[in-house]
Amino acid sequence: MDGFTIRLQAKKLAIRAGRPIAILHEDVARQLGIFPLDRIEIKNPKTKKKIVAIIDVTDSMVSSSEVGLFEDVIKKLKVQEGSSLQVRAVERPKSVEYIKKKILGEALTEKEIKTIVKDLDENKLSDVEAGAFMSAVYIRGYNMQETVAMTKALIENGKRIKFDVSPVVDKHSIGGINGRATMVIVPIVAAAKLYIPKTSSRSITSAAGTADAMEVLANVCLMPEEIKEITESIGGVICWGGALNLAPVDEKIIKVEYPLSLNPQGQIIASVLAKKAAVGSKYVVVDIPVGPGLKIENNEQGEQLAEKFIAVGRRLGMRIEAVLTDGTQPSGPAFGPALEARHAMQILERKCFDSLAQKSCELAGVLFELVGKADRGKGFALAKKLLKTGKALKKMRQIIKAQGAKILSSKRIELAPYTEQVFASDEGEIARINVRRLINIARIAGASYDKGAGVLLNVEIGDDVGKGGLLYTIFAENKRKLMLASREAKRNSGIELGKIILKKIS
Amino acid sequence: MDGFTIRLQAKKLAIRAGRPIAILHEDVARQLGIFPLDRIEIKNPKTKKKIVAIIDVTDSMVSSSEVGLFEDVIKKLKVQEGSSLQVRAVERPKSVEYIKKKILGEALTEKEIKTIVKDLDENKLSDVEAGAFMSAVYIRGYNMQETVAMTKALIENGKRIKFDVSPVVDKHSIGGINGRATMVIVPIVAAAKLYIPKTSSRSITSAAGTADAMEVLANVCLMPEEIKEITESIGGVICWGGALNLAPVDEKIIKVEYPLSLNPQGQIIASVLAKKAAVGSKYVVVDIPVGPGLKIENNEQGEQLAEKFIAVGRRLGMRIEAVLTDGTQPSGPAFGPALEARHAMQILERKCFDSLAQKSCELAGVLFELVGKADRGKGFALAKKLLKTGKALKKMRQIIKAQGAKILSSKRIELAPYTEQVFASDEGEIARINVRRLINIARIAGASYDKGAGVLLNVEIGDDVGKGGLLYTIFAENKRKLMLASREAKRNSGIELGKIILKKIS
Repeated sequence: MDGFTIRLQAKKLAIRAGRPIAILHEDVARQLGIFPLDRIEIKNPKTKKKIVAIIDVTDSMVSSSEVGLFEDVIKKLKVQEGSSLQVRAVERPKSVEYIKKKILGEALTEKEIKTIVKDLDENKLSDVEAGAFMSAVYIRGYNMQETVAMTKALIENGKRIKFDVSPVVDKHSIGGINGRATMVIVPIVAAAKLYIPKTSSRSITSAAGTADAMEVLANVCLMPEEIKEITESIGGVICWGGALNLAPVDEKIIKVEYPLSLNPQGQIIASVLAKKAAVGSKYVVVDIPVGPGLKIENNEQGEQLAEKFIAVGRRLGMRIEAVLTDGTQPSGPAFGPALEARHAMQILERKCFDSLAQKSCELAGVLFELVGKADRGKGFALAKKLLKTGKALKKMRQIIKAQGAKILSSKRIELAPYTEQVFASDEGEIARINVRRLINIARIAGASYDKGAGVLLNVEIGDDVGKGGLLYTIFAENKRKLMLASREAKRNSGIELGKIILKKIS
Repeated sequence: MDGFTIRLQAKKLAIRAGRPIAILHEDVARQLGIFPLDRIEIKNPKTKKKIVAIIDVTDSMVSSSEVGLFEDVIKKLKVQEGSSLQVRAVERPKSVEYIKKKILGEALTEKEIKTIVKDLDENKLSDVEAGAFMSAVYIRGYNMQETVAMTKALIENGKRIKFDVSPVVDKHSIGGINGRATMVIVPIVAAAKLYIPKTSSRSITSAAGTADAMEVLANVCLMPEEIKEITESIGGVICWGGALNLAPVDEKIIKVEYPLSLNPQGQIIASVLAKKAAVGSKYVVVDIPVGPGLKIENNEQGEQLAEKFIAVGRRLGMRIEAVLTDGTQPSGPAFGPALEARHAMQILERKCFDSLAQKSCELAGVLFELVGKADRGKGFALAKKLLKTGKALKKMRQIIKAQGAKILSSKRIELAPYTEQVFASDEGEIARINVRRLINIARIAGASYDKGAGVLLNVEIGDDVGKGGLLYTIFAENKRKLMLASREAKRNSGIELGKIILKKIS
C-alpha cells in the first residue's frame, strides 16, 4: 500500500476525537486506493512534522483538494488552515495483525502484546479494532504468559512511584459495590506500621467509589510526590488513582470493555496488578466478591481467578493472597458517598461493629499474616485490636489531615437535606436485598455526583419487620430528585420478604 | 439509568460522523451518571424532535452548560445554536445485550438478529460495539437459523427490484481477484434468453472490480428502473451495486469487517444471498475460488461453505449451485480496469479462448443445467456455442448500448500511455505467479483509479522463458507512477521460475 504521495490543503475541523483522524474526499481515497479506517501518513513540509491518521471518507465535508484534520492531528503537525500537506497511504500498524491472530485463537507473544499496548497508548488503533480485540480476548482468554506480558506492558507504559520504605502493601476489591472497607482497612494497616498507598476509583455504575466517599472527608486528588511523602511519614493514603497516569492504557482498555461489560479474567488481573506494581506493592490481598450478576458469578470462577492472581503475582515478584467474599449482600447499610464515608468513620469511632467492620478486620488480618506481622490465624485479632483501641481512628485522622482535612468525625458529615422513608407494605422476614436496585435508587436520588445523596438501609437479611416498618431512607439534594427516586422505590423497593405460603392452589 | 432530565444549550459541531454523536462536559456526564459510549436522549422542545445519541466526554470542548452536537444530530433535531435542549440518560439499545450474548457463545434468535441489523441500519451502535460483534461472529460462527435470519434481515432493510420476467438468474464470485468472467458470462446467459441483472462491486483491494472494468465500456451507475427495463428487454445488465441500496446494512458490516479482514462464513452467505434475493434471483451459481491467502483457504472450507450456501438458499426459495475453482492462479493475463475489460471483449470477439473463457463457459453451463436450459452435462457445450457463434458478442453490444455505450470493441479501449516491460533475470519454467504481488504493482501504477493503468502478463504457469524474456508490461498514466511501480517490480517481479538445483551443499 506504500504508494505515491499527493498534496492536499489542510482544512481544520475543531474536533477532538482522542485519536488522530483525518477526512478525505471519496475521490482522493479511491485515488490512494484506501478505505474508511485505513491509515494515511500526513507530513507538514514546513514544520517537518509527520503523523499517521485513521481516515474517514466523505463526499461533501472536504473537497477533493483538501484533507480534513481533527484537533489531535492539527496540534501534532503544527499546521495552518490551507497549508499544503503531503499525504500517502501507509500499512496498518503491526498490532492489527496481532489482534487478528488473537481472534484466530492463537496465543500472543510478549513482544506482540507490548506492541498492542503501545499502539493503544499512542491511539493508533480504531474503535472497531479495539472492540474486536477485547471481544476476542474475552472469548479466547489469556494464558499465563500472556497475562504476565499484559501486566508488564501496562506497567511499562505508565508512571511509577518508588518508596524508600517497606513493606509496601495493598488491598484490592474486584467490583465491590457498596461499603467502604478500604476506609477501615487502610488506617488499621497503617496503624500496624505497614505502608499502604491506596489508589481508588470513582463510581462507575455504583452509588459511590472509595475515592468519592473519601473526598467527603479529604482531598483525594494527590500528586505522586504527595502520595510518597504521606505514605512514608504516616503509613497510608486513600486517593483517587485516575489522574496519576499509573496505567494509562488500562484506562483506555476499560473504556473499550465498558459498553459490553467485557471483563476477561486475564485482563482483570493485569489491570489490578499493574496498578499495584506501579506503586511498588510487594504484598497484596485481593477481595473477590462472588455472586450471580457480578463480575465473578460463582466460587469455581472465583477460585480460578484467585489461583491465577497468585501465580501472575509470583512472576512479578509480588506475594498475593486472594479471598472470596459473598458479593450478593450489601456491605453495610450505606449507598452514597457521604453515607458510606459516615458509616466507615462510625466503625473507626467504635460506634458499631457490623459485617463491614468484620470484613475489614478479616482482610487486614490476611495482610498481616501475609507480611508476617502476625502469625497464621492471629491476623484478625491484631486488626480488631488496632480498631478497638482507637489506634486505627487516630491513624485515619492523621491521614485525613495529611490529605488536607475537611472532616475528622462522623458527626460532622453532612447528608442531603431532603429525605423520604420507605416502609414495608407487608410483614415478614427480610429474605433478600436487591443491591443493584438500591444502587439505582441512590443514583436517581443524585449519588455519586451529589455527595450527600443516597440510600440508608434500616434492615438486614433475617430481620423481622412489621407492616409499615421502616426499610430505608432516601436522601436527595432537591425535591425533584427525591420524588424521582421515591417513585422508583415505590415501584419496587428492592427488599423482598420471605413468604411462608409460597403458592395457593385452589 | 432512566433518570432525570437536565437542560443544556446546543453547541453545533460541524462534523458528520455517520452516526449520532454528542459531546458532554465531564461534570455533566458525572451528574447524569454516564460514561463515554453511553447514550443520551436529546429532545428539542421547540420542534418536538428527539434523538438518541452516543456520547463522548470532554473537559474543554464544551462547557458544563452545553451539549456539543454532530451534524447528524443537528439535522434530526432541527436545532439552532444556543437553543435549550432536554437531555437525559437512556439505556443502551437491546442489540448491545444481544451482541454480548453472541460473545458468550449463545446462538441468536431471528428477532435478536433483526434488532441488531435494524440498529446497525439506524447507526445506533458504536464502533466498539460493532467491532466486538463482528469479532464474536467470526469466532463463534452462525448456525443455519442465524444465517437465514441474517440474510432475511439484510433483505428486509434494503430496497428490492421486482421483475415481470423469469427465470431471473445470477452468478457470484467470492473474492475473485482478476479476470472479468462476469463480463463473458452475462452476455452468454442473456443470449440463452435467461434474465441476469448482475450487480457488481468496485475494487477494494484488487486492481479492478467488475464495475470498474465495465465502466470502461458503459455507464454502470444505473437506477433500479433502468436495471428492470434493460434486463426485461435485453436479458442482462452489468452495473455497480453500491448505490442501489439493495442491502445497505451489508455495506456497513463490510466496513466493520474490512480493517481486520473478518469474513465469517455465515456473514459471507448472508451478504451474497441478500443481494441476489433483492433482485429476485431464483437460480444462482456461486464461484468459490480456493487457495492459501484467499477468503477460503482450502477445499474443505470451500465444500463446507458450498453446502451452507445451498442449504440457506433452499430456505429462501433459491436454487444454488456452488463450484470450487483454483484461486491461486491468475484468471487471465490482465490486471486493471481497461486491461481486464479489453481481455473480456477479446474473448467475446473470439480472438482467444483461454482459461478465463473456459471458466466462463463452465460457469454459464452450470447455470443452464440448474435452470433446465440444458441437460446435465450439456451446459458447457451450449455456453461455448453461444460464444463461438458470436451470439454472446452481439448480446454484449446490446447491453453496452442499453447502458449508454462508450465502447463496443476491444480495439477501441484506451490503455495508459506510459509503459515499462519487465523481463526475466534468469531462464527456466514459470513455476508460480504471485497474484497478490502483481495486484500491488498494478495498484501502485494507478489501478483501479486510473482506468488505463495496470499489468498485462505475457506468460502462464508452465511456460519456458529465456533470460531476458518478457514477463509482463506495466501501464501507467504518468511517469512518476510508472517509476514507482517498476521500482516495485524490480524489487520482486512476483514471477517465480522453477529451479532444478534447489540447494547447493559445499
